[in-house]
Amino acid sequence: MRIIRDPLWNNIRVDPLAMRLVDTRAFQRLRYVRQLGHAYLVYPGATHTRFEHALGAYHLARRTLGMLDERGDLAALPAEEPAIARAAALLHDLGHYPFSHALEEIGTLDHEQVARPLITTGDVAAILRAEIAPDAPERVHALIRGAGDSPLQGLISGSLDLDKVEYLKRDAAMCGVPYGEIDVERLLDSLSIVVDPERGAHGVAVHEKGLSALESLLFAKYQMYRNVYWHHAVRSATAMYKRLVEDALRSGDLDAHALAAFTDEGLLHRLEGSSPAASLLHALRERRLYKRAFERPAADLPDGAGEWVAADRARVRAAEDTLARELGLAPGELLLDYPAKPQMLGLDIPVLRRDGSVRRLTTEGWPGTINLPLLSDQLYRSARVLRVFVAREVALGAERVMDAVR
Amino acid sequence: MRIIRDPLWNNIRVDPLAMRLVDTRAFQRLRYVRQLGHAYLVYPGATHTRFEHALGAYHLARRTLGMLDERGDLAALPAEEPAIARAAALLHDLGHYPFSHALEEIGTLDHEQVARPLITTGDVAAILRAEIAPDAPERVHALIRGAGDSPLQGLISGSLDLDKVEYLKRDAAMCGVPYGEIDVERLLDSLSIVVDPERGAHGVAVHEKGLSALESLLFAKYQMYRNVYWHHAVRSATAMYKRLVEDALRSGDLDAHALAAFTDEGLLHRLEGSSPAASLLHALRERRLYKRAFERPAADLPDGAGEWVAADRARVRAAEDTLARELGLAPGELLLDYPAKPQMLGLDIPVLRRDGSVRRLTTEGWPGTINLPLLSDQLYRSARVLRVFVAREVALGAERVMDAVR
Amino acid sequence: MRIIRDPLWNNIRVDPLAMRLVDTRAFQRLRYVRQLGHAYLVYPGATHTRFEHALGAYHLARRTLGMLDERGDLAALPAEEPAIARAAALLHDLGHYPFSHALEEIGTLDHEQVARPLITTGDVAAILRAEIAPDAPERVHALIRGAGDSPLQGLISGSLDLDKVEYLKRDAAMCGVPYGEIDVERLLDSLSIVVDPERGAHGVAVHEKGLSALESLLFAKYQMYRNVYWHHAVRSATAMYKRLVEDALRSGDLDAHALAAFTDEGLLHRLEGSSPAASLLHALRERRLYKRAFERPAADLPDGAGEWVAADRARVRAAEDTLARELGLAPGELLLDYPAKPQMLGLDIPVLRRDGSVRRLTTEGWPGTINLPLLSDQLYRSARVLRVFVAREVALGAERVMDAVR
Amino acid sequence: MRIIRDPLWNNIRVDPLAMRLVDTRAFQRLRYVRQLGHAYLVYPGATHTRFEHALGAYHLARRTLGMLDERGDLAALPAEEPAIARAAALLHDLGHYPFSHALEEIGTLDHEQVARPLITTGDVAAILRAEIAPDAPERVHALIRGAGDSPLQGLISGSLDLDKVEYLKRDAAMCGVPYGEIDVERLLDSLSIVVDPERGAHGVAVHEKGLSALESLLFAKYQMYRNVYWHHAVRSATAMYKRLVEDALRSGDLDAHALAAFTDEGLLHRLEGSSPAASLLHALRERRLYKRAFERPAADLPDGAGEWVAADRARVRAAEDTLARELGLAPGELLLDYPAKPQMLGLDIPVLRRDGSVRRLTTEGWPGTINLPLLSDQLYRSARVLRVFVAREVALGAERVMDAVR
Repeated sequence: MRIIRDPLWNNIRVDPLAMRLVDTRAFQRLRYVRQLGHAYLVYPGATHTRFEHALGAYHLARRTLGMLDERGDLAALPAEEPAIARAAALLHDLGHYPFSHALEEIGTLDHEQVARPLITTGDVAAILRAEIAPDAPERVHALIRGAGDSPLQGLISGSLDLDKVEYLKRDAAMCGVPYGEIDVERLLDSLSIVVDPERGAHGVAVHEKGLSALESLLFAKYQMYRNVYWHHAVRSATAMYKRLVEDALRSGDLDAHALAAFTDEGLLHRLEGSSPAASLLHALRERRLYKRAFERPAADLPDGAGEWVAADRARVRAAEDTLARELGLAPGELLLDYPAKPQMLGLDIPVLRRDGSVRRLTTEGWPGTINLPLLSDQLYRSARVLRVFVAREVALGAERVMDAVR
Repeated sequence: MRIIRDPLWNNIRVDPLAMRLVDTRAFQRLRYVRQLGHAYLVYPGATHTRFEHALGAYHLARRTLGMLDERGDLAALPAEEPAIARAAALLHDLGHYPFSHALEEIGTLDHEQVARPLITTGDVAAILRAEIAPDAPERVHALIRGAGDSPLQGLISGSLDLDKVEYLKRDAAMCGVPYGEIDVERLLDSLSIVVDPERGAHGVAVHEKGLSALESLLFAKYQMYRNVYWHHAVRSATAMYKRLVEDALRSGDLDAHALAAFTDEGLLHRLEGSSPAASLLHALRERRLYKRAFERPAADLPDGAGEWVAADRARVRAAEDTLARELGLAPGELLLDYPAKPQMLGLDIPVLRRDGSVRRLTTEGWPGTINLPLLSDQLYRSARVLRVFVAREVALGAERVMDAVR
Repeated sequence: MRIIRDPLWNNIRVDPLAMRLVDTRAFQRLRYVRQLGHAYLVYPGATHTRFEHALGAYHLARRTLGMLDERGDLAALPAEEPAIARAAALLHDLGHYPFSHALEEIGTLDHEQVARPLITTGDVAAILRAEIAPDAPERVHALIRGAGDSPLQGLISGSLDLDKVEYLKRDAAMCGVPYGEIDVERLLDSLSIVVDPERGAHGVAVHEKGLSALESLLFAKYQMYRNVYWHHAVRSATAMYKRLVEDALRSGDLDAHALAAFTDEGLLHRLEGSSPAASLLHALRERRLYKRAFERPAADLPDGAGEWVAADRARVRAAEDTLARELGLAPGELLLDYPAKPQMLGLDIPVLRRDGSVRRLTTEGWPGTINLPLLSDQLYRSARVLRVFVAREVALGAERVMDAVR
Repeated sequence: MRIIRDPLWNNIRVDPLAMRLVDTRAFQRLRYVRQLGHAYLVYPGATHTRFEHALGAYHLARRTLGMLDERGDLAALPAEEPAIARAAALLHDLGHYPFSHALEEIGTLDHEQVARPLITTGDVAAILRAEIAPDAPERVHALIRGAGDSPLQGLISGSLDLDKVEYLKRDAAMCGVPYGEIDVERLLDSLSIVVDPERGAHGVAVHEKGLSALESLLFAKYQMYRNVYWHHAVRSATAMYKRLVEDALRSGDLDAHALAAFTDEGLLHRLEGSSPAASLLHALRERRLYKRAFERPAADLPDGAGEWVAADRARVRAAEDTLARELGLAPGELLLDYPAKPQMLGLDIPVLRRDGSVRRLTTEGWPGTINLPLLSDQLYRSARVLRVFVAREVALGAERVMDAVR
């Protein structure tokens, strides 16, 4: 066991197989991909990378599997299942683009798909096949995509995944905001493997006595979205970066397939030469961010209005350029932003009740229990905001924006 | 300035006037009154007392007044107002009964009223009159009762009071639960003195940009009620203690007027001789707590059912003894419990908006903002539970209890 | 496994045997014995008790044994040895007098001896015999006394004992001083069971790579002695308390054999009636502490001067009363204080070197390694202070004191 | 006042002048210069940059000046002196080379000299002149160089400088090691402005009651050197990087004068093309570090042996290449390393004693006080290590190395 020090978890004990995976070039690249993209321009401490986060996710998986094993919950599983799950936790972000999630929003592949060749071919695959099982790379990748049939799927990708616990706590700590308090010990301690009555298969459940801990996870997630991930200046920088890369892709200056091999700074250096990119790039580097010309929370928007902004990049680009022209701005000097709903807000989790029965938390909630799914939805409607960012001050009427996004 | 070390705030700087108040006998008694009553039987770390909490409340008041002063918000106030407010923060719990809040539930006076003679007569009053103003003791007491006309009233007693920030964080830290995370810096930083449009008078408001911090306070409060203050075993011990003292008061063994002069352990030693008390007393000391024979959350109860349990002690006692008799238990071996709704959940707070206007958060909430008051109410309905505790195992039907409490 | 929340270690997992021991009356008494005696009069947060500390010591023992087991270090030990060690960690303070260590300084038995009947007879013994082994109580007690022949002896009582790690960190946290930082994870992780070449028997050693962590323990211990345990006001209160109890013992008012059955407050209530005690007792309660009339650090004293102060109570008392008389003070109004050298400063620890050899850290230190034992000695000479405390201001010449202590 | 969140100090309040300085291009570059150079390869969390550190140093200066002002210690100073000191704290690292200190060891200018044009010309100078005083840039730079005649010099550069407090705590936190505990509150609180009797001028002193806090600073510094800054793998990576850059400078591939304008990654991208550099560069990026072929602590070396290694780069290079040739290694595949003694270990600090006198801590120490300077020296001799690093395993005799370094 090798011990790696970590600002969040203090001592992370890493087994020899994991160390070999860490030493691959694909994994070392994660040292150079910031966990929160451009959030460091707003929260200067947020220089942490996917590398530390991946180690932390591995650490939580190792601890959780240890507890499940102590309780005998792993006895019925194939012997290599825990090793597969640990590897999946470690490797789950291998396919991240430079600056993390932003580029997924411009319609490139999602990072879990990008990860496929990185996991199922090359060094990583060779290590997994030799040390765990011949089909280990494919099983690891299935877990990461959320498509595994392993009883441990829920730990890796799903409502309860350990990834989420890790990033919420780490992001809060590194940003310096007191919003990531999760009752991790209690939450991990209340996990177990049960037969899910709806699916008739083994899966991860949370014990009823862990519901308060689950609430703490929900509150933390909401607070991090409201205060950090969806902070207006973070969104502004992200919008600028998306446009910058999109311009380079459209001009043929950059090849989409090469994207995932870059580090954060490597991509920027690559773009430095390109003339269209330069102004956005330097503005980002030196933190001259676009300002808000309009903003309105989801709760104040007509139902469904603007949903396409998060989904249809071509239409966004056209709308941006139309508005820019009307206001005397150059293309790329006005940006439209409406963050996609977080994918994993769902709380569709099997709950093991005190009487031994298993029941799912649904959007109906339970009598006598806080309605977490409903609460979750209310919280997000107030935190999600439609915004227009501009390179310099312009007069932009709210009706004009509402017209444009309808 | 004297510096007192504190586990929560690290260094507390205490001015000479405050040191003189701390050195009075009335204030020193608080060293021997546990902050959370019998919660230490469930959370062993909860041995902290009203003494540390009072110093902490003073600390927050001093810091907040310092910030308001820096911004010029105190310029229009009478010169002695800040000293009055600091003294009120320091002395606000002077009248606490042994084991804190429990005895208020048996119909004795509330601790803010008990405090009147302690503040307006004797050593404390003499110091306040000499060092601040001749009417200082009365003004301090008015602030503590929430009846002051000072613009600083809101800091001492009200929806936003610093007392609450202090106890939530301290209680969470000492219990060892990760549920007291409040964005204190941001919250204090967003306070200011404004003219409240409804009342036409100066008062404390929170700036709109502090709403996330206010949410963190609300979440923390809910989580502490659900997990600590209303924990079933804490409520069981509290119910036992209330019955113990009530028995002694009814038997004439103890005089209600003397109660507030006791320390926690002093009261127990005083009761040790009394024969009826002994068994409850020893059971409490050695942590042999009554067990739950029934429990049901407020959200599952018919509207209004059981509300009298928190209010009508004589009826509770009668119901307890009737049920006990039916089950073959001795009087005092069955206890009924339904915690009173927290008094200060209200979020009726003036909010200073970005455009300079002041508006109150009401139960309607605001469009585009999370409905904190409504959310608050939903949260509490799920955390508040009606319970029956018994000295030994008995079979108690749910219908019987529901009959009794209706 | 039951989980108990703790402000220091967050979640403490307690096995069923330990829970039974915790539920005994002897163990529950520890809830009412403050860990740091009268230090709470100086550090208001220091209200923590032997109860939490004992749980914490158990927690560290459980974790350490878990790690040793993982590494195979426990394979050669008798099967019940770990359970014996865990019980010893939990019960090691069972014999503590009220207000912890102070009364040991007046020549009563030490707390590890007082513990014998509490462990080898009654409830505790019955549980240990039934659940571990017929001779378990005696073996547990031997470990606590430091007289066990178990290879695990070093974990319970000795230079490296986990007890010390626990109290240094907990005391620092509760006092609110930043002086208890110990690299616990690394330290525990570097422990192993080796054959000690000098003794030819198995014992606990620390791996060479843990020496930095050992240094952090030494620094923490020194800083806590200098700043907390030997703080002048803490020593003043302790001296007052010692005199108070000694007076009661000498007057026959109190029986030495009954002492260990009292709680902190229980003892004070017992003494309340006694006339000689009353003034010291109330002064302590309300924090009217004796002031320093003289102080001089050990490093400035002639070699050996004053050593008897820590050892010979009768002589101390005589000297105190002589000086008092000379200065017009009543007996008991002048107190002499020179803390005993900490017993466990020794760093006589087997070290497992990178090359597999085992060697003891001695007072000679090692070439190329920091000389911890020598450093330790230097540090303490500067922190240990001879003092005279008085009830009211008097003029006391330094030469007079030096004459008296020589 | 703008508030910037920070993982270490939580909320940093930044005044408008400081915000203007932060927004300059020269300051924004610090976002891309890691605080600890290549330590992130060993401590993955150490991705923090000079940017956060500089904000933190400003924060400590602002707080300290606020306390000095409250006490009236600043009354006699020229009105603009505090603003000069705050600016110096903020800008003190403006001249740092990529990867921080390493390149100073190869004989390039030190970062405080590189800073001169950055502070005394251009945007930064313009802001300082306009907002503080016409000679402000020169005065700021003098403070940074330690050559100011300001009474506040001691806060910016010297034995007590706030810079040191900041980096020790931040580096420890980000590395995840429990070795940076400093009693900051107490230390800052014990600073004051006195007339230094030796120099006859005003300067910063520490009050005697802050000596324990000063000890905590010393212990923290020692522990950080031993465990982090001088960690063998950190030194190995640093040695590789020094050689990499030195090769590029010697080949004319890189211009020494341009160095300080690069960011960390910017410099590496610049070097990527150069053929000699490529292998060292990729080895660093992917963490294939040279291994130790020899190591010996300073305490085991003959007096003065090897001191030239830290000072005479040409000789080091020659010795490296000679040894490499003997062992069949290519030039650059064997590196010699002996860290320079930390410059600021000196504890030549004026101490304000309880009796009002001022006296310097010297290497003689004081009777009755721990000899901090002597202790400091002993500590460092055990932590400083002479090492040889090699690209692949070779047999290297200790005598051969000792011969080479004598």
